[in-house]
Amino acid sequence: MMVVAKSGFNISASAPTDKCFSSANGTKSPTTLPLNNSFLNLDQGDPTVFESFWRELNDECTVVIKGSDLLSYLSDTGNVCWFLLPELRDAVKRLHNVVGNAVTEKKHIVVGTGSTQLFQAALFALSSPDSPHPMNVVAAAPYYSEYKDEVEVVLSRLYKWSGDANVFDKDEAYIEVVTSPNNPDGTLRGPVVKSRAEGKLVYDFAYYWPQYTPITHKADHDIMLFTFSKCTGHAGSRIGWAIVKDIEVAEKMTRYIQMSSIGVSKESQTRVAKIMQVICDNYQNFGYAESKLFFQHSKRLMVKRWKKLNEAIKQSDVFTVAKSQRAYCHFTKELSETYPAFAWLKCKEGIEDCESYFRKLKIITRGGERFGADAKYARLSMLCKDEVFDEFLTRLSNIKWVSN
Amino acid sequence: MMVVAKSGFNISASAPTDKCFSSANGTKSPTTLPLNNSFLNLDQGDPTVFESFWRELNDECTVVIKGSDLLSYLSDTGNVCWFLLPELRDAVKRLHNVVGNAVTEKKHIVVGTGSTQLFQAALFALSSPDSPHPMNVVAAAPYYSEYKDEVEVVLSRLYKWSGDANVFDKDEAYIEVVTSPNNPDGTLRGPVVKSRAEGKLVYDFAYYWPQYTPITHKADHDIMLFTFSKCTGHAGSRIGWAIVKDIEVAEKMTRYIQMSSIGVSKESQTRVAKIMQVICDNYQNFGYAESKLFFQHSKRLMVKRWKKLNEAIKQSDVFTVAKSQRAYCHFTKELSETYPAFAWLKCKEGIEDCESYFRKLKIITRGGERFGADAKYARLSMLCKDEVFDEFLTRLSNIKWVSN
Repeated sequence: MMVVAKSGFNISASAPTDKCFSSANGTKSPTTLPLNNSFLNLDQGDPTVFESFWRELNDECTVVIKGSDLLSYLSDTGNVCWFLLPELRDAVKRLHNVVGNAVTEKKHIVVGTGSTQLFQAALFALSSPDSPHPMNVVAAAPYYSEYKDEVEVVLSRLYKWSGDANVFDKDEAYIEVVTSPNNPDGTLRGPVVKSRAEGKLVYDFAYYWPQYTPITHKADHDIMLFTFSKCTGHAGSRIGWAIVKDIEVAEKMTRYIQMSSIGVSKESQTRVAKIMQVICDNYQNFGYAESKLFFQHSKRLMVKRWKKLNEAIKQSDVFTVAKSQRAYCHFTKELSETYPAFAWLKCKEGIEDCESYFRKLKIITRGGERFGADAKYARLSMLCKDEVFDEFLTRLSNIKWVSN
Repeated sequence: MMVVAKSGFNISASAPTDKCFSSANGTKSPTTLPLNNSFLNLDQGDPTVFESFWRELNDECTVVIKGSDLLSYLSDTGNVCWFLLPELRDAVKRLHNVVGNAVTEKKHIVVGTGSTQLFQAALFALSSPDSPHPMNVVAAAPYYSEYKDEVEVVLSRLYKWSGDANVFDKDEAYIEVVTSPNNPDGTLRGPVVKSRAEGKLVYDFAYYWPQYTPITHKADHDIMLFTFSKCTGHAGSRIGWAIVKDIEVAEKMTRYIQMSSIGVSKESQTRVAKIMQVICDNYQNFGYAESKLFFQHSKRLMVKRWKKLNEAIKQSDVFTVAKSQRAYCHFTKELSETYPAFAWLKCKEGIEDCESYFRKLKIITRGGERFGADAKYARLSMLCKDEVFDEFLTRLSNIKWVSN
């Protein structure tokens, strides 16, 4: 039995997904001649696409942690975020300086167990128990499928999920989450709420890195969330960071993380700092070959995948995908398109449920309704391993072959 | 300025606490002649006492993590807790088998970012949005100071803090947290609520390890929480685990951790597994010197500290400390006393606020009221570094010297 958890992480004893590749137990799809008898998991954005790059840099990026290292809860008690290792703080600032995607000067860095924890820390920091009603949390549809569940998980009286920011018109205080590039559709975004009530913005910049989008400007907002998972593909490390302008907000976010996990893994912090340093060293050392430049390399991978996908979609004649945006990238110094981490596909007329359609092809996707959109849409990860992506393209081609 | 956060972690730019040792800015204490002009931080239980042991085993415990290791979110999708590394699951079971402090057979292991995250996961798992009123969460006073804040932090409608379990008499469903040995006072405990309403138990076994207490039995309860922080002193790793009988509860706990941080640092999981393996190897390899046996070594440290503290307390004539308990330890195969991770001191008549009294000695403690007890009490960490502990004893002696 394949059980798709509400969260989108497939929990299944019989269909393991750890290789984005599942043994099949279902019946054969009526519309395809599959090349093999496996489920393809394109549901989660598990970013294993960059693995071969990191394998090449295995030695440079190696961290060695001895038995007596990193014992204490405390990292830097002179800093607002007392569990943030100074080496990670410095590496985060250096990386943003190299990429030019965010202003870190005169800001506070708060580290989290992924940006998921920081998102909730931000809600906590921007809400108040003294408010007459829970803070409304909104995001423009289609929005990241997990925001709603993360806001609602323990039924807080501090905040509540209020859905699509495009139609929010209450005269109540709100937090708008601005995800840019957006998950699921990769669009570059700004805030949309038009309310006279007090609004606060949280920028989710998980995908504001050069492999996914032109770096159009150095972002400079009150609260900006980043995650290493999507920056480099090191999702297992569970490291995110917030760049926060206001010290009281940074203090409250720190307090939330203290209450929920008394800090963040130091092993992960040490390792992420090391990898960031290697990325920056390779950019700042002109002797290095371009093959060692992470964002150039990973952008080439994304460009290649999107080219192949666009061709397959065109051939299949079953789906459409939004046109990518084009802008000048201040990092690569060239005009560039967006190459989103997910494909946000829409089925053509006659197919009402895109996720179910893909499931018949033994391709696990995430249906549009989870994103506050129509079931005609589905989100597919563009970050899986090569063999999974190639098999996915083959199945798309088979649709064409069968339907012709 | 010394700012003591409500949480108990001192956040102060001018009085760094990362070495359990702070530069002083305050005035001289009227009752002491301090040997040096520093604040001693005995507030948190930062377990740096075991550092020298781990330094001796630095090489055996070393982990090496390469650039392309541990990329994926997923660890073991065939398991309920899909983000738990199999090597950690096996090491946890092996360690409990060696120590004999908990039954793991036919149970589910859920890993968390410290047991703090697992505590909240357990509340989530044992509560229901369909319940007519929030689940009452209680613990017998004196209880761990952070339970209340952790329960209340986001004002959940699923559960609420209902205080001292000894006086809980509502006819409503409840969760009783049984902390044994107890924090702050080190007592061995069982449940105390006498209610006809439906009650669920969560056992917090953070200190149920041989250096702190005789291992009186192999615990076998529905939900048992453990943390590596207090087991070995690796608090920076933020690794806890729950041993859970019921698969639905384990699934809900996993779901909570997914919603709050999409899993747990794999770097920490790998390292903790390695250290657990080294501990077990040394016990199961008879050729090893006793100096390499972690629990024997760490118990000797605790015995030594408690002996010194008891002498100093006796001399000072200002405090009392509860008598330790004695029982047969199935691990060390001998009668043993409890050697708690904290000293729970009570001031004698005439001193109403124990925390303030210690603050005059430039010793930062945690006052009794935070634990649901009287201000006459204060909790002091017994796990700080040697130089801090020795300085603490010196100041206790100085009290005597001055007051005489």
